[in-house]
Amino acid sequence: MTKAKARREELKDSLIEAAERTIVAHGHTALKARALAEEVGCALGAIYTVFPDLAALILAVNARSFALLDTMLTREAEAAAAAGGGPRAIANRTLIALANGYLDFAADHSGRWRALFDFRLPEGQDLPQTHQRQLEDLFRHLETPVSILQPSLAAAERGLLARSLFAAAHGMVLLGLEGKLVQLPLPYLREQIALVVSAMGRGLEGD
Amino acid sequence: MTKAKARREELKDSLIEAAERTIVAHGHTALKARALAEEVGCALGAIYTVFPDLAALILAVNARSFALLDTMLTREAEAAAAAGGGPRAIANRTLIALANGYLDFAADHSGRWRALFDFRLPEGQDLPQTHQRQLEDLFRHLETPVSILQPSLAAAERGLLARSLFAAAHGMVLLGLEGKLVQLPLPYLREQIALVVSAMGRGLEGD
Repeated sequence: MTKAKARREELKDSLIEAAERTIVAHGHTALKARALAEEVGCALGAIYTVFPDLAALILAVNARSFALLDTMLTREAEAAAAAGGGPRAIANRTLIALANGYLDFAADHSGRWRALFDFRLPEGQDLPQTHQRQLEDLFRHLETPVSILQPSLAAAERGLLARSLFAAAHGMVLLGLEGKLVQLPLPYLREQIALVVSAMGRGLEGD
Repeated sequence: MTKAKARREELKDSLIEAAERTIVAHGHTALKARALAEEVGCALGAIYTVFPDLAALILAVNARSFALLDTMLTREAEAAAAAGGGPRAIANRTLIALANGYLDFAADHSGRWRALFDFRLPEGQDLPQTHQRQLEDLFRHLETPVSILQPSLAAAERGLLARSLFAAAHGMVLLGLEGKLVQLPLPYLREQIALVVSAMGRGLEGD
């Protein structure tokens, strides 16, 4: 690597880290180019030599947040499987564990969570391929238990169902954490999510 | 009513109607006091003689939107009941019909829907009692089938479960209409919602 290229990579990493700190502490709407430049000690214009815009910087932080969420969900799925029982019991338990793992992520990392789901790319821009792939990986956690509960589903239908189950869990996490419908302390919210997700699991199994 | 009071009421209604048109066409974020005053032909300051702020005006439009949603859901529930079958079959069908009625409301009245669920009151303000009551009425549609599927639930638990089911449906409608997870034409989204909600219904019934 040339020295100039190494400096560019270093600036890129510093910017991602500074943006990550801001998003974790104050959310992605608080991200301002001038403050970032000050924090990493570069000229305002230098940001745009490594990122086309702030949106690209938010996406770079989101890639890290997806990786964290993936680690958390992998841990939940492994713990659910380790608790034993038949494949269907494990699948049901895994669905509940994943939904509550997602609740934990949203509750403990609300800035990251908001940036993943509230942030909209500027008009006309598409999500990068890597982002799409990370989203696929996220749904894959759900596809495993879904394929056990509904073994006859074709791959495309299984993918759709996994996304729909995710969306249902997302709704409960979103309205639950916002306290919009009812003010529930986290442990009760967790119970409600378990109640609804386990009903979904049993219902799918009974098909 | 004095003449002055009648004029006040008239101005209030005109403002609500103008705000409603804006929210329906462009969403609540497009609401601007100056444009409203121009539309109803009053002085800018006159708005604040009948509403303390624009938030109160948005809440007045939201009350109308709740009434419309309530009418749509009542119709769905009645149609589901009219199709016959035992109480549990009706309850399951009603849950699906309500979720898809909510999808229709969100798809056909997206400005109203956004104002109901995205609008946040200024810091420190609480939702008015009438708004809370309309929200209760909304959940009551769900409590009826829930009480048939889970007759042993106490009233408070039934209320929580109804809210959680609503939140799950809201998540599917939200992510489905945003096309964030997967681009699904409306009829397919409707099928997915039916699939997940009917699984929830069967699972609850099997408890």
